[in-house]
Amino acid sequence: MDFLELIKNRYSCRSFSDKPVEKEKLEKILEAGRVAPTGRNYQSQRILVLQDPKKLEQLSQCTTYGWNAPVIMIVCYDKNISWKRKFDGKDGGTMDASIVATHMMLEIESLGLGTTWIGSFDPNKIREVYNIPEHYEVVALLPVGYKSANSVPSSLHEKRNTLEEMVFWDSMD
Amino acid sequence: MDFLELIKNRYSCRSFSDKPVEKEKLEKILEAGRVAPTGRNYQSQRILVLQDPKKLEQLSQCTTYGWNAPVIMIVCYDKNISWKRKFDGKDGGTMDASIVATHMMLEIESLGLGTTWIGSFDPNKIREVYNIPEHYEVVALLPVGYKSANSVPSSLHEKRNTLEEMVFWDSMD
Repeated sequence: MDFLELIKNRYSCRSFSDKPVEKEKLEKILEAGRVAPTGRNYQSQRILVLQDPKKLEQLSQCTTYGWNAPVIMIVCYDKNISWKRKFDGKDGGTMDASIVATHMMLEIESLGLGTTWIGSFDPNKIREVYNIPEHYEVVALLPVGYKSANSVPSSLHEKRNTLEEMVFWDSMD
Repeated sequence: MDFLELIKNRYSCRSFSDKPVEKEKLEKILEAGRVAPTGRNYQSQRILVLQDPKKLEQLSQCTTYGWNAPVIMIVCYDKNISWKRKFDGKDGGTMDASIVATHMMLEIESLGLGTTWIGSFDPNKIREVYNIPEHYEVVALLPVGYKSANSVPSSLHEKRNTLEEMVFWDSMD
């Protein structure tokens, strides 16, 4: 399958089966995050993988999402490590973690598993619940699992702007 | 080629040939950005494609990079459109634009072209030079072109943390 097909077939999965995810597959997903490019190659990404049922259950304190996936990957960056832009001090960590999470999301898809990017969580609560150090910033949660038999793309999935609505050629005027 | 191979073969290309990039390939790259998932599917991404030699030349006012690529894609998000997190008002636009730019970067690679993510630019200068509206935030620049014959990965490319240095299983303690 070529890359455009892979990304067009991908959809946000919000219904998972109980089937456990093989360790080997989890490692491939993490490997996809490991090899991602990051600002100046500083590799600020840090990933907390939740599999313990008690830890997974606590997620409901931080977000209304999660859909009982058997695994949750919490993608963070280390503010002490991430590249800062010299012009204005902008922290490149959110970009780092987003490139990493995109790599992981697409590897999940290519393994025949499902995920969806969860950005809606209480950042203070998640830090407290999982004892995440102050210098780590949580960017995205990726539930990981086999799609349930009734998993389908949401009605939003097909709704995308046209290229004309998104692209400017040589000028934004 | 499977996805893990694609991302492991990718490297930051900083040397481009003069060969023009076909319109059809530019459209596939933009299509990869178009179908990307974004916060709540609000699709805040906006992309300025520079091909006009006069416009490309002006890039040197905003960044020391660019490497004379025949095309530069400036990936922005619209702050008036991007999803904001209810807990703390965090703007999801940088995540949107980063997912989009990662899709584009990997499509560039899969087409046999080269790119590298440029995050180091003067955000005020680039807005001024290209007349980018105040409500658009520039996140990344992607030069696009055929790799020159002497293009090679930098010495940094192979340097990555191990999985053990990046991953925490169930606890960060």
